[in-house]
Amino acid sequence: MTRNSRYDVLFEPVQIGPVVARNRFYQVPHCAGMGHLRPKTAAAMRGMKAEGGWAVVSTEECDVHYTSDIAPYSEQRLWDDADIPQHALMVDAVHEHGSLAACELAHSGGQASNHYSRTAALAPSPIAVEGFGTINARGMTKRDIREMRRIYRRAAKRAQAIGYDIIYVYAGHMLTLPTQFLSRRTNQRTDEYGGSLPNRVRFMKEMILDAKEAVGDTCAIAVRIMLDELMGSDGLQCDEEGIEIVSLLAELPDIWDVNVSDWSNDSATSRFQPEGFQEPFIHRVKQVTTKPVVGVGRFTSPDTMVSQIRRGVLDMIGAARPSIADPFLPKKIEEGRLEDIRECIGCNICVSGDYTITPLRCTQNPTMGEEWRRGWHPEIIPSAKNQDSVLIVGAGPAGLECAVSLGKRGHKVTLVDSKKEFGGRVSRESRLPGLSAWSRVRDYRLQQLQHLVNVDLYPASALNADDIFEFGAQRVVLATGAKWRRDGIGQELSFSVPGTDRTSVFTADDILDGAELNGHVVVYDDNHFYMGGVIAEKLRQQGASVSLVTPAADVSHSTHFTLEQHAIQKRLLKLGISIHTCRSLNAVHDGGVEIQCVYTGDSQALECDSVVLVTAQLANDSLYQEIMIDRSRFSEQSVRSADCIGDCFVPGTIAAAVYSGHQWARQLGEPTDEREVPFLREMPAIWAVLLFSWFRVSESAGQLVHRHHWSKRLESKVDISRLTHDWSSSWTL
Amino acid sequence: MTRNSRYDVLFEPVQIGPVVARNRFYQVPHCAGMGHLRPKTAAAMRGMKAEGGWAVVSTEECDVHYTSDIAPYSEQRLWDDADIPQHALMVDAVHEHGSLAACELAHSGGQASNHYSRTAALAPSPIAVEGFGTINARGMTKRDIREMRRIYRRAAKRAQAIGYDIIYVYAGHMLTLPTQFLSRRTNQRTDEYGGSLPNRVRFMKEMILDAKEAVGDTCAIAVRIMLDELMGSDGLQCDEEGIEIVSLLAELPDIWDVNVSDWSNDSATSRFQPEGFQEPFIHRVKQVTTKPVVGVGRFTSPDTMVSQIRRGVLDMIGAARPSIADPFLPKKIEEGRLEDIRECIGCNICVSGDYTITPLRCTQNPTMGEEWRRGWHPEIIPSAKNQDSVLIVGAGPAGLECAVSLGKRGHKVTLVDSKKEFGGRVSRESRLPGLSAWSRVRDYRLQQLQHLVNVDLYPASALNADDIFEFGAQRVVLATGAKWRRDGIGQELSFSVPGTDRTSVFTADDILDGAELNGHVVVYDDNHFYMGGVIAEKLRQQGASVSLVTPAADVSHSTHFTLEQHAIQKRLLKLGISIHTCRSLNAVHDGGVEIQCVYTGDSQALECDSVVLVTAQLANDSLYQEIMIDRSRFSEQSVRSADCIGDCFVPGTIAAAVYSGHQWARQLGEPTDEREVPFLREMPAIWAVLLFSWFRVSESAGQLVHRHHWSKRLESKVDISRLTHDWSSSWTL
Repeated sequence: MTRNSRYDVLFEPVQIGPVVARNRFYQVPHCAGMGHLRPKTAAAMRGMKAEGGWAVVSTEECDVHYTSDIAPYSEQRLWDDADIPQHALMVDAVHEHGSLAACELAHSGGQASNHYSRTAALAPSPIAVEGFGTINARGMTKRDIREMRRIYRRAAKRAQAIGYDIIYVYAGHMLTLPTQFLSRRTNQRTDEYGGSLPNRVRFMKEMILDAKEAVGDTCAIAVRIMLDELMGSDGLQCDEEGIEIVSLLAELPDIWDVNVSDWSNDSATSRFQPEGFQEPFIHRVKQVTTKPVVGVGRFTSPDTMVSQIRRGVLDMIGAARPSIADPFLPKKIEEGRLEDIRECIGCNICVSGDYTITPLRCTQNPTMGEEWRRGWHPEIIPSAKNQDSVLIVGAGPAGLECAVSLGKRGHKVTLVDSKKEFGGRVSRESRLPGLSAWSRVRDYRLQQLQHLVNVDLYPASALNADDIFEFGAQRVVLATGAKWRRDGIGQELSFSVPGTDRTSVFTADDILDGAELNGHVVVYDDNHFYMGGVIAEKLRQQGASVSLVTPAADVSHSTHFTLEQHAIQKRLLKLGISIHTCRSLNAVHDGGVEIQCVYTGDSQALECDSVVLVTAQLANDSLYQEIMIDRSRFSEQSVRSADCIGDCFVPGTIAAAVYSGHQWARQLGEPTDEREVPFLREMPAIWAVLLFSWFRVSESAGQLVHRHHWSKRLESKVDISRLTHDWSSSWTL
Repeated sequence: MTRNSRYDVLFEPVQIGPVVARNRFYQVPHCAGMGHLRPKTAAAMRGMKAEGGWAVVSTEECDVHYTSDIAPYSEQRLWDDADIPQHALMVDAVHEHGSLAACELAHSGGQASNHYSRTAALAPSPIAVEGFGTINARGMTKRDIREMRRIYRRAAKRAQAIGYDIIYVYAGHMLTLPTQFLSRRTNQRTDEYGGSLPNRVRFMKEMILDAKEAVGDTCAIAVRIMLDELMGSDGLQCDEEGIEIVSLLAELPDIWDVNVSDWSNDSATSRFQPEGFQEPFIHRVKQVTTKPVVGVGRFTSPDTMVSQIRRGVLDMIGAARPSIADPFLPKKIEEGRLEDIRECIGCNICVSGDYTITPLRCTQNPTMGEEWRRGWHPEIIPSAKNQDSVLIVGAGPAGLECAVSLGKRGHKVTLVDSKKEFGGRVSRESRLPGLSAWSRVRDYRLQQLQHLVNVDLYPASALNADDIFEFGAQRVVLATGAKWRRDGIGQELSFSVPGTDRTSVFTADDILDGAELNGHVVVYDDNHFYMGGVIAEKLRQQGASVSLVTPAADVSHSTHFTLEQHAIQKRLLKLGISIHTCRSLNAVHDGGVEIQCVYTGDSQALECDSVVLVTAQLANDSLYQEIMIDRSRFSEQSVRSADCIGDCFVPGTIAAAVYSGHQWARQLGEPTDEREVPFLREMPAIWAVLLFSWFRVSESAGQLVHRHHWSKRLESKVDISRLTHDWSSSWTL
């Protein structure tokens, strides 16, 4: 395939100060839940972006000093020379594919907990550090400012020595010192660093000039800046100081990386913002600078990208989430393979990696975060090792992904669903308010299946155990999903709630299946992710009067991990939904429910016409159980295995279902993994063990008898044969 | 000094299966925010306990398999051989001092998020995993149970090979699989592992027998079990199934480690439970077993300990928190130095280490967590390197700790406070409801000062800048504390709230100083740690009608980190305090306040007679500022430095203030630390760097030119001279 020439503009090189980006695709800095704890994981992930055609690949936030300790979160550090080797891994991985590596140097100032470093946080003026109670930041003295500039210059030089091509002054999201100097909320200084806008910009200007002086000979200086805080006059507004700040510094950096603040606004989910939603702010920037501008907007459509460039909004297509969903987005456009693009659905499950300090995951891209530890590649899957045919029952996210992956491996696959429409939960949930983009999980896979002649699709085909045995596939995969519990059992409650067998009681499934409820509805949310809130929203939109009851202290509590909690609770309140937090469900009566304070046990009555339970889920594994009862028929019918994947194995996120389907497809026909931990780990260095062991390793023997040199007693036989795949990593060096 | 013979019983050896504890002091397993991410940190901390006389020193929870992945928390792991070297460090550190090392093997079952391992959680029956939304656990099959037993045996054998003396079956706190089998809430099985109590105990019994068979020849098997969940009939009750479970297994383990559940009940703070509060449950255990029993109760008094043993409640004095506050507690009793015991104040700041995934800290013991990275010892401080005399202004926690530490180093110290009573904030806060034990921070230090003839104490002595200069000390230390802001600025609000200058507006300081408010009082908490809630409690106790308003979703939100949030909100509600969450303060009017929903901005009026602000704090640094204006007088008066410590440097926790005072005292007269990061770090192994660098290291040169072997381009000069203090650790091996 060749690309349509109208996309050629996306592949023009862009001069960024002393360096040249080979095309216009720019992976802006984004956190990954990897950071300094998992440098090999990060390097492999960033390298994959470069391989996929992103001309610039950035780190996550990289803290320049131990006074910028954002514990417990794990992002990058460049505190001293000891951090260099970590970064070198990433830079090399990016350079290997001809891309530029960018380092987002940052000092978190009054946002740093310094919980680990146990030192005082620093801010322009004394402020309370959010989120921990009783941590305050000191107002910086002039000497502190001078010292900070020195720290920053030193970090820039280190970044240059490592080989970074672009070095950032990070002034975005109100997360760093320069933004805290910019904002009137955090800067009450009365000296030349406070007061007027030029004064509040001074520190940032000095940082940019310092960086240019220090490393500008070989490195481009990027400024990542927020244009608007979307909070009205309490915050920065684009039309006022936002654009004026850019004007004041217009030609100083080599590239502007611009967005809105805070992070939840910048990384708004598809539930709240469409593709390109930042254009009203970003488009102002090129009017005041001649330097290239990169901006974001969850861009996945090449036509939108071209339009942004043609209309002079942007010079480079910035992306975080779209590059996670598809590291090969640029290459696919370049090669004219638009239908192969795995489009970001804007669900922000990736963001949860930062909050849970685990490598990021992606609903669309099951290989994300697994590049190093499992050696998974988003575009390459080993071809089939045997001829086994596979029957997959259920075409939801797990079944679809499994079918696509097995199809690409070359297996003969039959994908069956009882419903006429494929997609399972994704099809159903994408009809909920704001979630239409989630159908991309289905659509991408259906698109892929069109080209896989070895995969047969049978919609509207309900199978029973007999049908399955008679079908005669060697492998049976059950992907029959999950159902919401109908008894009230969830995270808070462990026993059935009296009255939940009444006809006035519904579950999320009933609403997804189209039940329309009138009058007053109580939605009881003991699941805490998005479902309870979005069901309430849907019912309200349909005209019901809605009360949301939850044992949690806020609505859709777990959506803090996807940056949505505030927006969700705000939306529900604005819709007039009444919210009862810290309340569990005691009983369902005729015409109402009894709810109970989770602290005191005090109960109260709430009148309603119907109740919708959104609590825990149960696997739809009855078909699997039926098959297993007839296990004797396996050999008769040459069935070699029957397995559950996705929600039918264990109910979870859509991302988990896709991952499960992908994993099953990858392991088919492969030798059984004999390792006790089926992935590589990164572990803290323990020097003594290494040095001693190094001289005792006998790879041929496969057995290492090592006597810990600090211990004369201990002698243990450790089988290292299973560790040799990456001895350096699995073993604690 | 010699000890009173009535304490001799505490130093009797105890036979525990095949091993012997040298005395009755037993550091039960406790988390430390170190875990698998920081093994050297953990080993040094545990080793210090052994040095201090604890006959048994345990790990934190040690997960036996990657299906027990409690990410994001960092406790121990024994997933495969790669984890062994970490543990060997700890075991050796403990053995070095003649103590027994215990490993708390655990499988978290349905409590494991498996966020990092991305595998299904396992539980007796399908349940929702708490805390993350949309993570469910699978109900285990018989095959899963068999596999789990195999996993557990393998882990036990590994622990034995490492050299552990005691190996746990952890069935406490509802955090692990055996407890999930025990509880009716999480076990709805209908096979021989569910239903009757003997059935629900079966899995645990098998684990104990398996462990004994696997390693019982050399290792003792400990069972840590919960006796009561303190939740009535919904949970385990001691008088019913709690003690029956112990009876069913009575002679199987070699030692019983018993407590109440959940963790917040077991580790209740002094605000909610006194020393020895678990006795009503624990005392039942020795009635049904002949095996030794260890239990906890925040024991710090040797008389209480002796009483527990004499009365047959316990055989061994279990401790987590008291061993953190004073690792040398046993040794001090042994040597008759009771007045040197640093008693735990029961504040649970230690617990916050687990939640924030940072090494634990202790209010009383500033060296806790710093044993490895800073080389601090709780009982040893280097003697003075010069003759500098020190004037410390302010005898709060920072000033007192600084004076004690400097006094022990041998400096001539003068400690002055404007108040008659020493202790600063600790004296004031210890008069709040439930916080009386906090005065131990003061009392321990005043006790120590009694023996330090080189420290002069001047209470009731207000000093101004002139006084300080004229005093003639070479070093001036300001420890003048902090004050609560009077303008409403906190974490949520950045600008002064209109009306906060009214006479009806008070701050936490006014209440601490004894202001008694009548009528209806609004407490506005934008600090979120304990202060807002405890002030509300005090006012209510004094008879006021109280409303607590907070922008957070729950009361005293940050006390989740100290396990107190639930108990606090429950207490306030039971006291009849009305709670308005998710509301910020808009304005104070005559006769009331206007508060505003943090989501919608909708405002509402609340009538009241007075308002108490608990928001952010400001350093009391005006005296310091005065001195610095007169800096020219420094040389005149031979003053070599003036520094702020504690809250006067930056307001924070009491623990932070003590730490600050200790740190200042340690660095006086020491060579300036030239390192960019003034403590050692543990970092992930990067093999290639090590092996290449190892052969290029020239310690005499102090300069290492290393060419990363995977990169032909990069050549950087890295100064390793500053890393040689512990090259293995600071460098990423």
